[in-house]
Amino acid sequence: MRPIQSVRWSPDLHSVRIIDQRLLPTDFVERDLRSLEDVCDAIRTLAVRGAPVIGICGAMGLVMSLAWRPHTSPSALLKLARENALSISSTRPTAVNLSWALDRVIARADRTTGEVDAVIAAMWEEATAILEEDRAMCQRIGEAGVNLLREGVRVLTHCNAGALATGGIGTALAPIYVAASRGQSVCVLATETRPLLQGSRLTAWELTRAGIPVTVITDGAAAARMRAGEVDLCIVGADRVVANGDVANKVGTYALAVLARHHGIPFYVAMPASTIDPSLASGDQIPIEERDPREVSSLGERRVVAESAAVGNAAFDVTPAELITAFITDRGLVYPPYAF
Amino acid sequence: MRPIQSVRWSPDLHSVRIIDQRLLPTDFVERDLRSLEDVCDAIRTLAVRGAPVIGICGAMGLVMSLAWRPHTSPSALLKLARENALSISSTRPTAVNLSWALDRVIARADRTTGEVDAVIAAMWEEATAILEEDRAMCQRIGEAGVNLLREGVRVLTHCNAGALATGGIGTALAPIYVAASRGQSVCVLATETRPLLQGSRLTAWELTRAGIPVTVITDGAAAARMRAGEVDLCIVGADRVVANGDVANKVGTYALAVLARHHGIPFYVAMPASTIDPSLASGDQIPIEERDPREVSSLGERRVVAESAAVGNAAFDVTPAELITAFITDRGLVYPPYAF
Repeated sequence: MRPIQSVRWSPDLHSVRIIDQRLLPTDFVERDLRSLEDVCDAIRTLAVRGAPVIGICGAMGLVMSLAWRPHTSPSALLKLARENALSISSTRPTAVNLSWALDRVIARADRTTGEVDAVIAAMWEEATAILEEDRAMCQRIGEAGVNLLREGVRVLTHCNAGALATGGIGTALAPIYVAASRGQSVCVLATETRPLLQGSRLTAWELTRAGIPVTVITDGAAAARMRAGEVDLCIVGADRVVANGDVANKVGTYALAVLARHHGIPFYVAMPASTIDPSLASGDQIPIEERDPREVSSLGERRVVAESAAVGNAAFDVTPAELITAFITDRGLVYPPYAF
Repeated sequence: MRPIQSVRWSPDLHSVRIIDQRLLPTDFVERDLRSLEDVCDAIRTLAVRGAPVIGICGAMGLVMSLAWRPHTSPSALLKLARENALSISSTRPTAVNLSWALDRVIARADRTTGEVDAVIAAMWEEATAILEEDRAMCQRIGEAGVNLLREGVRVLTHCNAGALATGGIGTALAPIYVAASRGQSVCVLATETRPLLQGSRLTAWELTRAGIPVTVITDGAAAARMRAGEVDLCIVGADRVVANGDVANKVGTYALAVLARHHGIPFYVAMPASTIDPSLASGDQIPIEERDPREVSSLGERRVVAESAAVGNAAFDVTPAELITAFITDRGLVYPPYAF
């Protein structure tokens, strides 16, 4: 079975087809975004999530909001395009990928001469290119990493760095999908990834849909699995990689890296080169987002931590470069010493 | 504020007063068990939990079910006592502490001569002794461990090995309560402890009630806290300690022990000497309970893992003795080499 496609053009080309990630894993619903409001709602309510997916969905949604409609002139089109882009980017103001993708589509329109149809066609091409580039980047990561996976390999991963987070086959999961597509047997141990359970809700769902066996365990159970010899290697994604190779990723990643080292298990980080931020010298300089404590203190409507207790909810942690066996990137494997 | 008392005689001595742990942390309800049915229900539905507490509650409940009632003869009393003990023990057939405590009360009745009142008085004394011995044992563990805690110490603990799990001030939390009772400043980092969240629901609740500052974090967040220098030492409880000092405890304990070692943080295990099982040579021989996967795959009524994914839910893990700095027991501190 092919990996799912988290965002794409609908077959009639009149709308943007997304997987509504709010309903996973119980319901697999693809939703066609047919208006500017649909796009803004989908991004705002986390129906689409994952930095690359948000950017792609925003860019495609912007074009969709302009196409198949009458425009009096190219300049009127461009004015509306800027307004719509602003509406979309304001749904997730801190999502760097979103404004980057929208800017790219607007810039393409800006430099296109000709009539309304030609400008829209160029914007369409640009949004499609953003999707296709992301898809190709995932594929290259997969091909860079696939040789690390021998027949029957057991891979531990954390959070969701898969097809649901990208336009393609993901980052951490890309080598696994490529191996599976070549008929190789791979099985995955997925940590549930508290507090938001992306491992349970997303990673387990997309892997089982692709026919890849996966077992979900609590974050605290990974250590015993390693000690029992049930993990051959770890692959995780990255939110940011800095100059010395330190990595910020979903909280819990650092614990897994330490545990992997203790048990002599290779620990790989998969990401596109665009995740590298050479402006920071080391991981200590990466700002760590502290999220709403209710993600930890409540389960649904039910409060599970005493009111007067403090709750910490750092969303990310930093894994020092010395714990990372290699990076799996769209430009190939990168081994230490790291100097990005 | 004094630590809570999870089980005790009610002031009128006609019932067993328990904290209904099902309602924590949102509602603090003490419930008076007034009949055999009340006692069986409380144990069966986990209103009382924690091996020592179940044993104490069962023993006290047995006596309560017999006292303040007419009995035609000592032998009629003893017959009814055995029937009631059987009803109580059948609520949790694998709880070793429960049948041990019930047997102890029955044995005391057996060897008591005299009239009905004298037999009941002896049983009452025995049940009270079980509670008091447990309370004293906790206190001794606390006194054995308190000197490990300097002023302002920051202790990381896992799961709930506190007052809610024992008749006294707990095992892992006992040194913390003793330090606090001496006016010393202590603060606690409590891992939430997936899947059942005993850290969130129980440990955070009982510590805040005692006025001890506590911060709840996800299990995966402990590593970053250690790296940031925010943990001075770890203290956890134990379900079983075997001859070579290997420890079975709530899943996630082993990960914390490895992380503590990596960061040069002392790792202590607190437990009564009765937790030692010298019949097993090493931790590899300890059977690990695999619990219902729905504890991991569902949050309340909501399924969070895809149906076709496998789910692992080992309830315990084994921490090898070499990662344990010392044991804090009711007989004092025990340092390596361990030979129990």
